Amino acid sequence: MKVILYMAITANGMIAKPDDSTPWSEKEWKSYSSFVKKAGSVILGNKTYRLMLEDNTFKRLGDPVTIVLSSYPKPEDVKNKNHFFVDTPQKALEILKKKGFKMAVVGGGGKLNSIFMREELVNEIYLDVEPMLFGKGIKLFKDADFEAKLELVGTKKLSKNEIQLHYKVKEIVDVVKEF
Amino acid sequence: MKVILYMAITANGMIAKPDDSTPWSEKEWKSYSSFVKKAGSVILGNKTYRLMLEDNTFKRLGDPVTIVLSSYPKPEDVKNKNHFFVDTPQKALEILKKKGFKMAVVGGGGKLNSIFMREELVNEIYLDVEPMLFGKGIKLFKDADFEAKLELVGTKKLSKNEIQLHYKVKEIVDVVKEF
Repeated sequence: MKVILYMAITANGMIAKPDDSTPWSEKEWKSYSSFVKKAGSVILGNKTYRLMLEDNTFKRLGDPVTIVLSSYPKPEDVKNKNHFFVDTPQKALEILKKKGFKMAVVGGGGKLNSIFMREELVNEIYLDVEPMLFGKGIKLFKDADFEAKLELVGTKKLSKNEIQLHYKVKEIVDVVKEF
Repeated sequence: MKVILYMAITANGMIAKPDDSTPWSEKEWKSYSSFVKKAGSVILGNKTYRLMLEDNTFKRLGDPVTIVLSSYPKPEDVKNKNHFFVDTPQKALEILKKKGFKMAVVGGGGKLNSIFMREELVNEIYLDVEPMLFGKGIKLFKDADFEAKLELVGTKKLSKNEIQLHYKVKEIVDVVKEF
């Protein structure tokens, strides 16, 4: 199964403002939503899931099969039968495999992204670079002990000021903790 | 005077590993050093300056006029007469203006970059995006209360896997502190 991390980021690598807001463009939304619709599924961290639930984002994404990585079981207020709660990234991929998916989209936040990278589960990365800088914010990867070597597969202009970078993950280096 | 921030970053916005190392490519060095040589000067934070001094980087950069932003005066062990110590970004630019420079290069680290952004002194930004991710590291901007809107002026492939993003700074938004 091919696992793809897809995120919009500022030019300094932030995926949201400190208050979790993501003031991205219509063009970015179009690119992201087309991608998820085509995939038919998305894997999210618990916080990102809650934010998207509140914004009614799943409807606009065509009700994809949604796997939430969480240390808690599926809450009772979540009625959508397309939404699943698991406690490891491997279980998330297992569910999608069983459902016949050939591709999984990892869609944030920073903690989830780091877990998937550290476990060496990500094959490709799409970054929609928004023409913004946040002096503070939520980073693409929550601090984690890994380094990755990438291959630039291609670039695509989403609009006059937005560029999409497409990478293959070539190698994950597990960095030994210093302390 | 045109002020340009020029930095190499990983695809997730890190300018160095946690131990300050910067394993960038020869192509990136060529691009960066050509830029600084052409400018004839560079503004650095104290830590970045020390690291470059230890590596004998200034010789390889053609001995540029180097302005160090530091809360301390010029140390006695610094003998190079082309190196100046100042305690505000405005004074750094003032020295370069007096010397007839039309352009200033802001060259890191993250703290210096944030100071120049917050003071609304940066006109353009070049980011050489290296095909790497650091799960932890030194961010392009040390946490600071600002947001910026950018215009993508152009992109340039430095090599197969490296792309340079060139932005104009359109607007700096001073974010009110929440606490």
